[in-house]
Amino acid sequence: MIRPHRWDGRALYLIDQRRLPHEEVWVPCRTAREVAGAIRDMVVRGAPAIGVAAAYGLALEARRLAASADPAALDDVVRALEEAAEVLTAARPTAVNLAWAVQRLRRLWRDAGSALMTPASLADRLAREAEAVDAEDVDMNRAIARHGSPLLAGVTGVLTHCNTGGLATAGIGTALGVIAAAAAGGGLHVYATETRPYLQGARLTAWELVKQGIPATLVTDGAAGYLMRTGRVQAVITGADRIAANGDVANKIGTYTLAVLAWAHGIPFYVAAPRSTIDPATPSGDHIQIEMRPPEEVTHWQGRPVAPEGIAVLNPAFDVTPAALVTAIITDVGVARPPYERSLAALVQAAGATAPAVSGGGSRA
Amino acid sequence: MIRPHRWDGRALYLIDQRRLPHEEVWVPCRTAREVAGAIRDMVVRGAPAIGVAAAYGLALEARRLAASADPAALDDVVRALEEAAEVLTAARPTAVNLAWAVQRLRRLWRDAGSALMTPASLADRLAREAEAVDAEDVDMNRAIARHGSPLLAGVTGVLTHCNTGGLATAGIGTALGVIAAAAAGGGLHVYATETRPYLQGARLTAWELVKQGIPATLVTDGAAGYLMRTGRVQAVITGADRIAANGDVANKIGTYTLAVLAWAHGIPFYVAAPRSTIDPATPSGDHIQIEMRPPEEVTHWQGRPVAPEGIAVLNPAFDVTPAALVTAIITDVGVARPPYERSLAALVQAAGATAPAVSGGGSRA
Repeated sequence: MIRPHRWDGRALYLIDQRRLPHEEVWVPCRTAREVAGAIRDMVVRGAPAIGVAAAYGLALEARRLAASADPAALDDVVRALEEAAEVLTAARPTAVNLAWAVQRLRRLWRDAGSALMTPASLADRLAREAEAVDAEDVDMNRAIARHGSPLLAGVTGVLTHCNTGGLATAGIGTALGVIAAAAAGGGLHVYATETRPYLQGARLTAWELVKQGIPATLVTDGAAGYLMRTGRVQAVITGADRIAANGDVANKIGTYTLAVLAWAHGIPFYVAAPRSTIDPATPSGDHIQIEMRPPEEVTHWQGRPVAPEGIAVLNPAFDVTPAALVTAIITDVGVARPPYERSLAALVQAAGATAPAVSGGGSRA
Repeated sequence: MIRPHRWDGRALYLIDQRRLPHEEVWVPCRTAREVAGAIRDMVVRGAPAIGVAAAYGLALEARRLAASADPAALDDVVRALEEAAEVLTAARPTAVNLAWAVQRLRRLWRDAGSALMTPASLADRLAREAEAVDAEDVDMNRAIARHGSPLLAGVTGVLTHCNTGGLATAGIGTALGVIAAAAAGGGLHVYATETRPYLQGARLTAWELVKQGIPATLVTDGAAGYLMRTGRVQAVITGADRIAANGDVANKIGTYTLAVLAWAHGIPFYVAAPRSTIDPATPSGDHIQIEMRPPEEVTHWQGRPVAPEGIAVLNPAFDVTPAALVTAIITDVGVARPPYERSLAALVQAAGATAPAVSGGGSRA
């Protein structure tokens, strides 16, 4: 299984996804700020993967603080963890999984006062929780694939966007996990958009597909309409960075364009994500903050300029696809269909795992 | 005025558009095969510009042949010109302007037998005709801008694709000429897609816009839907490489996606092109051959790989936008609106300049 991180209890090692597929360089992180930097700089990306990384980041921070703290100074440690949590949450504002994972660990230290914990025992507890977030993501990925793959029955060409595979998660992936499960039966060809500006499709998804021996073709983002009009693809499936309570989906820039194209061609548009991506605290896509990334991601290529000096750039990392364009949302606890207000709430409730209310990242900038 | 070529009567100098905006390198061409190579390798691109280049290529070839030919050996020269015409026409199959320009010069040598011409006088005649093709394109660009700019009245944000400016034509451009004319009145902001894989938008259109001081923003192709949904653009205008008799438009890959998005958002989608782009011999887009370009344009960047080895690539250079999605076609002889069978035929007839019937490039591969 392709994984974006390794954890040895004392450090988190992240594969530098900026240098894939040509170099496999592992970046060690030993503090929350190092993890936040790696998230911000896209050493690690993919909504579920950055959630897991953030959880480990807090565990690392707690261990570091515990090593030097007075055993009785739990309040100081908690204060420092709150600061670290803020830094991590701010690293990338759109994906809810990050804020969700931080919130999940935050609960532990907020309850710590009543639990007679020491800094050391809190650090242990946070490490176990981060490992649980990690392991649960692996299970959730498998469940997403199990729920989603029947939807691709009879499809001979499926289009996907960005990277939603092993590198984007802790497990087999979300949308790409569904695709891999469906492709195991044979007869499915995958079209992967290169996904400008960061080329997650060309660099990461293509790499995962080749590694797994899944028949696949790389195309530019602009070729998606051509693929649908010429009948090469009969379904689109993407991941999600945040799903609002009404089913609006924030995902990698270009996703909305694919959803409009799918709708115009009468092709199903599926979204695959763990339930932690559903944010009941965000009523609709209008409330999702869209992260603007640096212009250099568009104007430069491996440090070299490709556009003239003086040109302005708008580089939104994500866009919002309205629920009306989403055929179904595939989660680890089942498949939701419109109307999503009801179906998403029912799924989350039935699973007995309502995502913790997330604040901060969820409000519009 | 930005121009892609210089002509001194003995050589055609083409600015190497692959190296813009960072280097201005002029490539000299002295034979038809050199010009064909420059077209195939995209030293020069843009449908009108390659039409003009091809015309000069034939003029150069005729001069070269005349220099060594027996004054009475006109038949040999004509035979060699026919071969050169085939090589030029095959250099890029989709754009009709290339085939149109070649056909226009071919008429002269096919009539040469009855005109008591020598190789030298034929060469002079071809050079004058190539210069006329060049000069007429300049005039046509101005006329396109005059007809098209009123359509952008009240628009504060316009989206364009690929490069349709001075570099793509002999004059001020087609779609970009319309934009420049409309922007002269102030209040218009241009959004230029980078246009993968060749980045004509980032490298060429952005360069032209900066040079002309037109307020502009560069975006990835995938951001087009986001721009429309957030209200930033209220019109789309592109060029065309071939317009079928029914109004179907072949243009740079990604154009069809923009047309679908515009339609879905109730935004007008305009096409600007000289009348030579209208091909009465092509009844519909189904008959337009779509050129497939090398995979390396997608998988490599300045010679360096960005995608893993072993991934397949589909790299269509163009797509077809059905006439039903085209709000209006802006030509040098007026603006055509649906139904296009009638309006395009009327425009071409009224201008008294029916494009010569084009064969070869027009049939589906």
